[in-house]
Amino acid sequence: MRTIEWQNGTVVTVDQSKLPSETVTITLKNCEEVADAIRNMKIRGAPLLGAAAAFALALTAHSSEAESRERLLAELEKSAEIIRATRPTAVNLFWAIDRILSRAKDFSGSSRELAAFVVNEAQKVADEDVAVNRLLGKHGADLIRDGDVVLTHCNAGALATVDYGTALGVIRAAWEAGKRIRVFATETRPQLQGARLTAYELRQAGIPVTLITDSMVGYVMSKRLVNKVIVGADRVVQDAVINKIGTFTIAVLAREHSIPFFVAAPTSTFDLTNRSDSVIIEQRKSEEVTHVGSIRIATKSVDVLNPAFDVTPLKYVTAVICEQGILYKGDLGKFKSSIPTRE
Amino acid sequence: MRTIEWQNGTVVTVDQSKLPSETVTITLKNCEEVADAIRNMKIRGAPLLGAAAAFALALTAHSSEAESRERLLAELEKSAEIIRATRPTAVNLFWAIDRILSRAKDFSGSSRELAAFVVNEAQKVADEDVAVNRLLGKHGADLIRDGDVVLTHCNAGALATVDYGTALGVIRAAWEAGKRIRVFATETRPQLQGARLTAYELRQAGIPVTLITDSMVGYVMSKRLVNKVIVGADRVVQDAVINKIGTFTIAVLAREHSIPFFVAAPTSTFDLTNRSDSVIIEQRKSEEVTHVGSIRIATKSVDVLNPAFDVTPLKYVTAVICEQGILYKGDLGKFKSSIPTRE
Repeated sequence: MRTIEWQNGTVVTVDQSKLPSETVTITLKNCEEVADAIRNMKIRGAPLLGAAAAFALALTAHSSEAESRERLLAELEKSAEIIRATRPTAVNLFWAIDRILSRAKDFSGSSRELAAFVVNEAQKVADEDVAVNRLLGKHGADLIRDGDVVLTHCNAGALATVDYGTALGVIRAAWEAGKRIRVFATETRPQLQGARLTAYELRQAGIPVTLITDSMVGYVMSKRLVNKVIVGADRVVQDAVINKIGTFTIAVLAREHSIPFFVAAPTSTFDLTNRSDSVIIEQRKSEEVTHVGSIRIATKSVDVLNPAFDVTPLKYVTAVICEQGILYKGDLGKFKSSIPTRE
Repeated sequence: MRTIEWQNGTVVTVDQSKLPSETVTITLKNCEEVADAIRNMKIRGAPLLGAAAAFALALTAHSSEAESRERLLAELEKSAEIIRATRPTAVNLFWAIDRILSRAKDFSGSSRELAAFVVNEAQKVADEDVAVNRLLGKHGADLIRDGDVVLTHCNAGALATVDYGTALGVIRAAWEAGKRIRVFATETRPQLQGARLTAYELRQAGIPVTLITDSMVGYVMSKRLVNKVIVGADRVVQDAVINKIGTFTIAVLAREHSIPFFVAAPTSTFDLTNRSDSVIIEQRKSEEVTHVGSIRIATKSVDVLNPAFDVTPLKYVTAVICEQGILYKGDLGKFKSSIPTRE
């Protein structure tokens, strides 16, 4: 099953906040429910957020009683605002909304025809994500050698996408090509996507995985227990890669140990009109740090900083792997001009 | 109250595995009970382990029915072996045992007199730790300026020592001298000593503290939210500082950001006859990573690596603060010769 699917006018996905101890399928019936699931990280992962945003507009279109094309467009704009307000950092969400809205505006036809068109376009966003990830994985697998031990952070797997994954897509593709590789997965505090989701996905796929805490990355690198790093991205800007908190720390350690640091990100994650200083880093609530489930793990009333992402300047990035190939770093202009634009 | 105390032939301490949600005082009656408390990290922190080891021998001496000095010495040797086998990395444990045994061997008197002497020597180890920490704190406070924001890792506070603390001793001394400082404390996975103990101690002392996950250190440094790092040590060897897992990661990040990285360690933590490659890094059980209390936080049956410490080469260390003053790094010989020997 795909991580997200359109089923009879609803959006069906799995509540990732409960995985892997419980596999709870949730059925979302309107844009607000999708927004809520995104805010609570039941739906997470940059490419998946793109598909979810597209399907949120599809839900609005599908259930609309608008009599005119203009009225439906206004409803779509309203839904777009609700989705845009959920999480500020991952760009795929904005990319998918802009793509759907822009095509909807260009579409000439009745409100009914437009609604069907929007549902179809959302489905295309989801379908393309799977195709893009497989292509990205194939390109990236060329960078992985038999015997490699790859460190990954957070979850950039099938669960972070519609299917297959980005960073884990590369690992899957290398494994499927017969390369005997192993993976170290960081647990990824505070939300433990590595311990819960990445370790789970890799075990399901039969790929050997060892779980470590985020604080152990320096240790495993200094002991030469890993020889490559692959992570996903929430946004690739002109000068940096923005990804799950902890990514920058790993990148600095990788450079210190001369370990290649790869970022696997589809072009839907690229935002090359912006620099990192213009991107809002989402700050999330303290309870994610002070509690695990209902258990308090920190002393009471302590102040907490909880940024969800950090910024890794391109100088720490060996290459960005996208569906169009492998982009090695060079000067910024070269990097920028080598980025393909989506049709 | 001190973290550990000799009370009427027993050793009284607080179960640190339960702090701060529960303050459970435990009374240890013999060497085996102390060994058990050390293994389960009810007692932890390098200097505190030294005092606990000394008191373990005191318990053996106090309850001994040995008729001869030789018989008591044999019992003390046996207890020493039990304590030495608990945890291999923090050197204070071995230092305290060696100190007590060596002085006991030099002592001439009856078994009864020797028993009283051992109890007295153990009390001296504990008393000296407090004096040493205050002195260390005073020296270290010279390095802290008004307005500094100091990052610390794990717990090198009063709870890691008999009283006052090493890294937190420096912070306390600066605060007591009227310097308005703030602290960032890493939560310190897997055992969360930062979230549970350091944040608790600093709040008790009224010193402003912000809790972060270990993965956020790169973020706070890149944003210039901290300008100094102070950590404790479990062992200072010829070429490196060995401390809680995650320390090396922070040291690499500090150097990358040109942030001074200080290690606060009494000379009882120094082991300058050894190099880091001869030190055993304790590997602890998987459940510390896969569970928080009784809650499973990782996918089932996943392989785990759980080293309790890591090795920070001296090139990353700006200075070591001990009770005799501040030791700046230089070439190894200079560093080594500048280490004072304990009487």
